[in-house]
Amino acid sequence: MRDVAIVGIGQTPVGELWDKSLRHLGHDAIVAAMQDAGIETADALYVGNMLSGELGGQEHLATLLADFVGLRGIEAAKIEAACASGAAAMRVGIMAVASGMADVVIVAGVEKMTDTLPHETTAGLALAADQEYEVAEGATFLALNAMLMRRYMYEYRVPHSAFAPFPVNAHKNAQGNPNAMFPMAISVERYINAPVVAPPINVMDSSPICDGAAAVVLVPADRAKEYGQGKRIVRVAASVSATDTLAVHDRRDPLFLEAAYLSSHRAYTLAGLTPKDIDFFELHDAFSIMSVLSLEACGFAPRGQGTALGESGAIALDGELPITTMGGLKARGHPVGATGIYQIVEVVQQLRGEAGTNQLKHAHVGMAQNIGGSGATIITHILVGED
Amino acid sequence: MRDVAIVGIGQTPVGELWDKSLRHLGHDAIVAAMQDAGIETADALYVGNMLSGELGGQEHLATLLADFVGLRGIEAAKIEAACASGAAAMRVGIMAVASGMADVVIVAGVEKMTDTLPHETTAGLALAADQEYEVAEGATFLALNAMLMRRYMYEYRVPHSAFAPFPVNAHKNAQGNPNAMFPMAISVERYINAPVVAPPINVMDSSPICDGAAAVVLVPADRAKEYGQGKRIVRVAASVSATDTLAVHDRRDPLFLEAAYLSSHRAYTLAGLTPKDIDFFELHDAFSIMSVLSLEACGFAPRGQGTALGESGAIALDGELPITTMGGLKARGHPVGATGIYQIVEVVQQLRGEAGTNQLKHAHVGMAQNIGGSGATIITHILVGED
Repeated sequence: MRDVAIVGIGQTPVGELWDKSLRHLGHDAIVAAMQDAGIETADALYVGNMLSGELGGQEHLATLLADFVGLRGIEAAKIEAACASGAAAMRVGIMAVASGMADVVIVAGVEKMTDTLPHETTAGLALAADQEYEVAEGATFLALNAMLMRRYMYEYRVPHSAFAPFPVNAHKNAQGNPNAMFPMAISVERYINAPVVAPPINVMDSSPICDGAAAVVLVPADRAKEYGQGKRIVRVAASVSATDTLAVHDRRDPLFLEAAYLSSHRAYTLAGLTPKDIDFFELHDAFSIMSVLSLEACGFAPRGQGTALGESGAIALDGELPITTMGGLKARGHPVGATGIYQIVEVVQQLRGEAGTNQLKHAHVGMAQNIGGSGATIITHILVGED
Repeated sequence: MRDVAIVGIGQTPVGELWDKSLRHLGHDAIVAAMQDAGIETADALYVGNMLSGELGGQEHLATLLADFVGLRGIEAAKIEAACASGAAAMRVGIMAVASGMADVVIVAGVEKMTDTLPHETTAGLALAADQEYEVAEGATFLALNAMLMRRYMYEYRVPHSAFAPFPVNAHKNAQGNPNAMFPMAISVERYINAPVVAPPINVMDSSPICDGAAAVVLVPADRAKEYGQGKRIVRVAASVSATDTLAVHDRRDPLFLEAAYLSSHRAYTLAGLTPKDIDFFELHDAFSIMSVLSLEACGFAPRGQGTALGESGAIALDGELPITTMGGLKARGHPVGATGIYQIVEVVQQLRGEAGTNQLKHAHVGMAQNIGGSGATIITHILVGED
């Protein structure tokens, strides 16, 4: 198996991008990544996307994009694992290079969610849940996460306000990210008094519906110096995907993200690391409750202590375990199938020292975790900056 | 790179399976393949599927199926490349094993197309075409193929009746396939007089809308003898994917399947073979015209001579290049995202000597080709039976 390196990154701003079609969004991110890597062609393009069929009337998206960016003829495929589609596509790209079946691979995440009516987009997101056992009974994604948050508050006697540090931190960090959708600070008071969407979840617990695209270029690590125009090379130290039941009611303990535990701990083993070795963590804060459950399952906080970790200040840029360093899903935005690639791009920015005002002092080992559904598909990547 | 072998196959009957839900279809094929391979678990499940979101309200399908077949926790992802989704998933499975990132991988193709109204299914299939440049202008898949067929007839002065050998051969072969949707012979007269759907395409030129699922189990070739319970081992000699424009009007020569040429000829090179070494060919006869264009692009007939190859009898079970040996898309059926895996399963049946009354005398090297859209994604696999 060949080691794999990331030698190019690209991204579009995240937001309500009504002047860009799906193919233009993909184009902009892919071309940016190719320019960053200094390449003019590639062997394959894998695209993470969840909703192009449902919301855009377009499947076969990867082949469309390959042609549209000038790479007609190369291999192309779309990879889907709900909101974890981006990281799932990343894994396929890694396998293509690791196996030797491809040398230069582009992985993109693309999503357009704002050209449809809100109820259409909400229905689209529900495709990630169990159609027969959850959606047909009226559950939306928001409702499922609201039940998880309420259960957590009950089980661990935690008030809603204890979740404030997560969106407050995300919005603070988004101010340093020129591509963030909501680059403005919010106060704890604003969080507490935000309009409730599905109790106990309020607007500030929820990541926004938005458009965006991000891309990376992968090559064999032993040839990485030929690319990237002298920028620091980032090596994929571990890539692991694990799954759980789609339907939340099928889990023995809905407050334990089994798939986050499995994928993170296998990733630690593959990389020869422990949670203490992770310098920062781009986690999947689609809702505040997911940040807390992820931190606990990945071994960064004991069960029931995830909110306390937030309150301790450890998650800030100058803390022990900075998270959502460029704004996270909450404030950078969550264009679902693209999110997993935005996370990878942001980890690379930190490892390269390109994170601007948000640059971490110690950024040698970064972790990204992308979650599909209410914890059903969880994919963990550990990336290391090469000396 | 590790060589990859197929050690298990499974399939459901193809048809209007109203008593089986999407998850039950996938379950039946996957469990059959696991039993055939003699395995009780696996490292990953990749699912080829095109329309579960659009027609079934269910994305995140691979994770759902992993849980439903008793493999909760393993990696899972859905792969989509329109009607080539099955072969695209096959490629991901091969990369997972070849890279060493997985040892035992299940690849399934699953599709359910008959629980929706015909116009809904037709709209679903159009997701494979260019939404902005073809579908918005009123094109359906059928219309695009009808234009290709008419152009071929004009360009090469070929009458419609010259295409008869392809559906006649497919239906003849389907009689020996217990899983075929239409296992009945048709005469040339019946072909010629069949109701026209979109001139010049008639019902007998067109593969049916249907449900079905198929699955294979992949392992490293050097460990293949541990699996498959003594059955003949089948090795993946080549796996190549290539693409073209989604929109047919963007192609310089719409009658030349550039992606079929690229993927087949790269596959010949990888396998160290020429077209003459291919003992039989499971091609993508979604419409009769596609059979002809595929045979020409892959080097089995000169341009404009594809129908003559059919008329020569070479495509029959006892001919020089048997095609659609188990009925093809036309008569076995075309559950779109599953078709690529049905083709692989049928090649394995022939290579193992398990094709019953359709068993070929010389079946050592088999080729399968899966086409997405009107030739936009074309994936070729060459499989070899080990001695």
